[in-house]
Amino acid sequence: MSDRRLATAPVSSLWSPDEFEAAIRAVGAERYHDKHTFHKLLHGGKLSKGQVQAWALNRYCYQEAVPRKDAAFISRVHDRELRREWLHRVHDHDGLPPEELGGIERWLVLTDGLGLQREYVTSMAGALPATRFAVEAYVHFVREQPLTIAVASSLTELFAPSIHRERIAGMLENYDFISDDVLAYFKRRLTQAPRDATFALEYVKQNAKTRDEQEACVDAVRFKCNVLWAQLDALEHAYVEGNIPPGAFVPDVK
Amino acid sequence: MSDRRLATAPVSSLWSPDEFEAAIRAVGAERYHDKHTFHKLLHGGKLSKGQVQAWALNRYCYQEAVPRKDAAFISRVHDRELRREWLHRVHDHDGLPPEELGGIERWLVLTDGLGLQREYVTSMAGALPATRFAVEAYVHFVREQPLTIAVASSLTELFAPSIHRERIAGMLENYDFISDDVLAYFKRRLTQAPRDATFALEYVKQNAKTRDEQEACVDAVRFKCNVLWAQLDALEHAYVEGNIPPGAFVPDVK
Repeated sequence: MSDRRLATAPVSSLWSPDEFEAAIRAVGAERYHDKHTFHKLLHGGKLSKGQVQAWALNRYCYQEAVPRKDAAFISRVHDRELRREWLHRVHDHDGLPPEELGGIERWLVLTDGLGLQREYVTSMAGALPATRFAVEAYVHFVREQPLTIAVASSLTELFAPSIHRERIAGMLENYDFISDDVLAYFKRRLTQAPRDATFALEYVKQNAKTRDEQEACVDAVRFKCNVLWAQLDALEHAYVEGNIPPGAFVPDVK
Repeated sequence: MSDRRLATAPVSSLWSPDEFEAAIRAVGAERYHDKHTFHKLLHGGKLSKGQVQAWALNRYCYQEAVPRKDAAFISRVHDRELRREWLHRVHDHDGLPPEELGGIERWLVLTDGLGLQREYVTSMAGALPATRFAVEAYVHFVREQPLTIAVASSLTELFAPSIHRERIAGMLENYDFISDDVLAYFKRRLTQAPRDATFALEYVKQNAKTRDEQEACVDAVRFKCNVLWAQLDALEHAYVEGNIPPGAFVPDVK
């Protein structure tokens, strides 16, 4: 992309912080997974319990990857203050005993509520391979990309609170197998995600010092949206269109 | 898996070489991508030119990853003889000047023949994110797994010649936009794949020294089948069922 741009136009100048933020937010408007059909089916009460089970056990793979992704990030940071700031993300997902259960445990309360065996969920044996590939692509991205770009890939959290609010309301209203207490994960994320997103947005604004770096940050948000979108594509293909790949979870409830 | 097995049965004994090979081949019979609907549509002449274009430009990502995967393997090998043996795989794909063009170049002859711009194909800008995630999962697998398991993941080539023969015949017969010369890639693989598969099969038979290692090799073949299957799932979802994700290739021919 940048080569082609250089050939036909003058070198682009640095975006202002506001222009940079607008470019990041435009990616959400274009391709955040709240635009996906499967998301609409899920929240609109159009899925069977078996389909919601499939969603929850696949999405577990994403939850399970997030603290590894954050640890991969921390492992590359030489600035102690930044490591300390980032570490609470691992606590948010893994819990900090004895007080707090953490996001993964809260996710398992949801899968419990859906009638799935914990051992089966955490083994990830029934997850779609496409889910695992997408999720691990995110871990590898954060492990391999420059730090500022790695931070930028977390910025989909800018778009998360509205999807979480919509999810809580839509799922409670539409599914009799979903109760308020099993949605603890999403309620907790309503406060966690904005705090993290604010920090990360400030970080990339301060640390992306060229237009190329700024564009790479926007591409990182696009990449991350693709990670989320591909998971819903795979769910829709397998469990809405009925093409479950060999070895993946087969619902036994309607 | 092994924990559960240990809890309910005595420790399994080493498979004989023949049992081990049979377990590997059974994976192909169960889930090699010649069983996939999209494969049948492709070879049966049921796809439009635009759909064949989508297949070819996505599959380019796989071709492009293979020599990187092989270099990742070589980078971990301390045995010079094994490195020398493995290196011809990189030549097979990248070519060894001045004589041989290599598999990637032959793939581009196919995409040329389909009317796609080389720059667009090689940029991979229009490829499905799910394709990239699956393909890179293979590169990471080979970079991260024990060497014997990494070798085992190449063993889908045991199943490749029949799919290639089927592809050559089916595509020539069914599509007027496919000519004999653009199928050079597959014709060349008819001799390359069996040579490589024979070596790799012999290698894992000699180097998997416990039942756990043997089972991990079989799992590696399963993993690799999933990499191939997920690519066809993504193509089918996007280009047969009509759910093209944001930013991906949109055919402009029927």
